[in-house]
Parts: sequence; C-alpha cells; structure tokens
Amino acid sequence: MNKEISSTQNAMVKYMLQLQEKSRSRKKDGKCILEGFRELTLALDGNYTIDTLLFYPEICSHERVQELLKNTKNSPECIEISKDVYQKIAYRGSTEGILAIVETKEHSLETITFHNKKPLILVAEAPEKPGNIGALLRTADAANVDAVFIANPKTDLYNPNIVRSSVGCVFTTQIAMGSSAEIISFLQKKEIAIYCAALTASENYHVQDFKNATAIVVGTEAIGLSSEWLENSTQNIIIPMQGKIDSMNVSVAAAILIFEAKRQRNFT
Amino acid sequence: MNKEISSTQNAMVKYMLQLQEKSRSRKKDGKCILEGFRELTLALDGNYTIDTLLFYPEICSHERVQELLKNTKNSPECIEISKDVYQKIAYRGSTEGILAIVETKEHSLETITFHNKKPLILVAEAPEKPGNIGALLRTADAANVDAVFIANPKTDLYNPNIVRSSVGCVFTTQIAMGSSAEIISFLQKKEIAIYCAALTASENYHVQDFKNATAIVVGTEAIGLSSEWLENSTQNIIIPMQGKIDSMNVSVAAAILIFEAKRQRNFT
Repeated sequence: MNKEISSTQNAMVKYMLQLQEKSRSRKKDGKCILEGFRELTLALDGNYTIDTLLFYPEICSHERVQELLKNTKNSPECIEISKDVYQKIAYRGSTEGILAIVETKEHSLETITFHNKKPLILVAEAPEKPGNIGALLRTADAANVDAVFIANPKTDLYNPNIVRSSVGCVFTTQIAMGSSAEIISFLQKKEIAIYCAALTASENYHVQDFKNATAIVVGTEAIGLSSEWLENSTQNIIIPMQGKIDSMNVSVAAAILIFEAKRQRNFT
Repeated sequence: MNKEISSTQNAMVKYMLQLQEKSRSRKKDGKCILEGFRELTLALDGNYTIDTLLFYPEICSHERVQELLKNTKNSPECIEISKDVYQKIAYRGSTEGILAIVETKEHSLETITFHNKKPLILVAEAPEKPGNIGALLRTADAANVDAVFIANPKTDLYNPNIVRSSVGCVFTTQIAMGSSAEIISFLQKKEIAIYCAALTASENYHVQDFKNATAIVVGTEAIGLSSEWLENSTQNIIIPMQGKIDSMNVSVAAAILIFEAKRQRNFT
C-alpha cells in the first residue's frame, strides 16, 4: 500500500520546498525536485535515480506511475499526495500530477568521456538567466553535442527554472561545470580547438572549419567572454550583424554556431 | 518652458497606462508607449513620429532629451514628470528616465517594398509568446532580412512585452501582418519560394538552396504550421534533431534557418 501525505505541514513537503528554493540544500543533500513525465523519463534514461515519487491520483493514475517505475533500477518510495500538497509543491501551470525527489549527479570534468574522436562541445561562461541556460541545453540536445561545459557557473544545474526551461535536457547531455581555467586546461590537454564568440579580433564564423575537435565558447550578452578565454582562444569568431542592433541573445547565437558546425560535419 | 506632471492621477498618466495595457486602445488611437533611449532612437531612425516625450529629470538630463530631439522631424511636446509618475508608468527595472507616446504604423502587406531582387523573408504564423516574437525580430534585424511577416497575429506588434523583448527591433525591420491566405497569395504573386519548417514530408534544411527569393516560415512550437501553409509549401524543411527532444524553441529554429540562408548568400 502506498504511503499518503495530505497535510502541507508535513516534513517531507517542507523538505521538498527547500530543495526547490535553495541551491544550498540541493548541493548539501545531492537531491533535487523533478516534475512531469517527460522530465522524469529523460532523467531515468540518463541514469538518474529517483528516491521518492509523489503523485496526485486525481490527475496521475496509478497505471501511469507503474509505467514510469518500470524503468527504474531501484524501488523508489511512492507517495500519494492530496490536492493541497500537490498545489503547494508543483509549479504553477503544471498539470501532470507527478513529481519526484531525484539524486543529482556530480558534474566534474573528470566524469566526461568522449565516444567521438572529434568532439563538438558547447561552452558557456557564467550564464546568468536560467531561461538562457535551459535554451542552451535544448540546443545541445537537438545537436547531440558531445558535452556542455558551464564555466564559472552562477547557479547549480538543478535550479527548477533551468530544469523547466530545458524541458528535461539537463538529463540528456553530458554536462560539466568548472572554473574557466580548469575547462581551458582540459580542452588544451585534449587538443580541442577553442572558438570564442567575441567582437574583437574575430573572423566570420561561417568561414571556419569546425570539423575537427571543436569547442564553441559563448559569454554573456552583457559582458561577453572573460580575457581568460580570449587569451586562450584558437580563433575568435563572430556572427556578422547586419542590422541596427549589436548583440544577440546568447542561446540564439550558440544555436547558429553549433548548427553551422553540425552542418559542416554533415550531421554525423 | 516644459510642462510638468507630478500627480499619478493626471489624465495623461491614465491614458498612457491604457496604451500600455490595452491592445484595443493602441489600435484605436494608433499610438503606443516606448521607453528608453535605444528604443526611441531606433524608432526615430525607422521614421516613427514621437507625439509626446516624458522624462524624469533626476535620471534623464535635459541635455539627453535635447540630443534625442535633434533627430525628430516634428516638435514633440516635452513633459517633465515626477518620480511617482515615472515609477507608475515605467517598467520595473527601467532606469533611463525617458519615455514617449509614439505613433504606430500600419503593417499591411501593401506597405512592403523590396530593394533586393531575391528577398529573404521570415514568416511566423500565429506566434503567441511576446518573448518569442521579440526574439524573432532580433534575429530578423541581425540578419537584415528584407521583411518579417506575421500571419494570423494573436496580438498587436506594440504590446510592451514585444517591444521590450525585441530591444527595439520592432522599429528596424519591415513588418507586415495579415491572414495566412493573404501572405501566401502575396508570396506566390512575387514568386517567392515558401519553405515551411515542418516535421512531415520534409527535407533537411541545409541541403536546400536559399539563394533565390525565399520565405522561411515557422509555426508555433506546440502545433506547428497550419495546413494552409503546408499545402502551399514549395518545400517543407526540417532541422535534424539528434537528441532526445523533438522540438525546438521557435526563435532558435528560425535563427538557424535564417542564418543558413544568409551563409548561402555569403552575408550579402
């Protein structure tokens, strides 16, 4: 028989709210909250472990829960929750009736492995807006890049707004976080060319050769990349801007660059 | 001497709030509210007319106002406003201290002119989120496309969230709105090839030839393009999706497609 929680004052409810709101809690316990079938399915596909599954049976049937549990290696605790509890924990607008406490992963550079001899990597330095990080991860998934590196991260990866805006792509791509120095050193050791999106000393992106091992590095819209990256750049690249405006949204720029690399590689 | 408004109960303040909040008011009077130097400068460059300029002198000096007014053809009324009034009308986070009532333009297909014999056009059908429309307009500006067409629009172009997320690119590109039928007929008459981003009967975008007169047409992420477009498509195109996720953000997809066309045209 399933356990039930009907009070919003329940300790687990409070704990889950803390995991949603506090990066520190997520880091300390190595856990985060996921919501929705697609997100949970992608997390299971990505070898994440569900600790506890919570569902509101009016919206999410026992059958749907069982279907999801088929793909788990462990046996997560399953808890029925009341409408009040569901509304307290769930995001506004969510209607799938299912959420879970999931174990997060380490995202150190040491965990990165390449199956591709000429990997294509997307690097974002200090991206700030969760929506931009989510969008970068969606592009990374669509292009099936070999890894995403987040340099000098401003937030943990399991920020609910990142998870949500990535539509679950946090779980589908190899991601490592580290200082810019660590990542530059990693790329140099592996002989991966560093293409920095930058306004100075830049050549047009579309005349570069991205067919060899390539890292495409983007900074923030406001301040661009740090000198650390620019000093270690194999080649600075620029998207010609032919209108009145001099900057692009970082996720749009990254998508144009990454898909040019994919095109050159003939999407293999 | 400048006129001054210090009360938030002033009739003009109320009128401006109405222009911000109500599409109907904007359409009826053919006016909208703009905020910020860049936006106003871009609007003047785009031959928009400022009716009334309002500034909060603690943040925006008289000199800055004069500088902007140099570029106006008419003599807009200038009004000093109090902190209270400024905070009442200005967006959260805005700190430039300047805003204006600006005359909107007609965006009918009849107003569209091409200087380019082989125009490149971005068409978006029924885009919903103002942020996506703003992002599409930024991409259109960056690529200097010959026109943007919004088919079956769900909102007017001067929605403050569109203006803001476009960072003023509403004013830098030729934009027309119309029904899908009207736009399709326009494109066919001008012999402009229609490339519909679609999942069915599609060929990879990067093996198409976008060097001739080209319209790239995108639908919404949720439902894609209507059958009206698909039935009149010269060729459906698709961006190969190689990850776990089957859809892209519409503004990211449009940017990849438009910049592939630009690349083929060698950014001329």
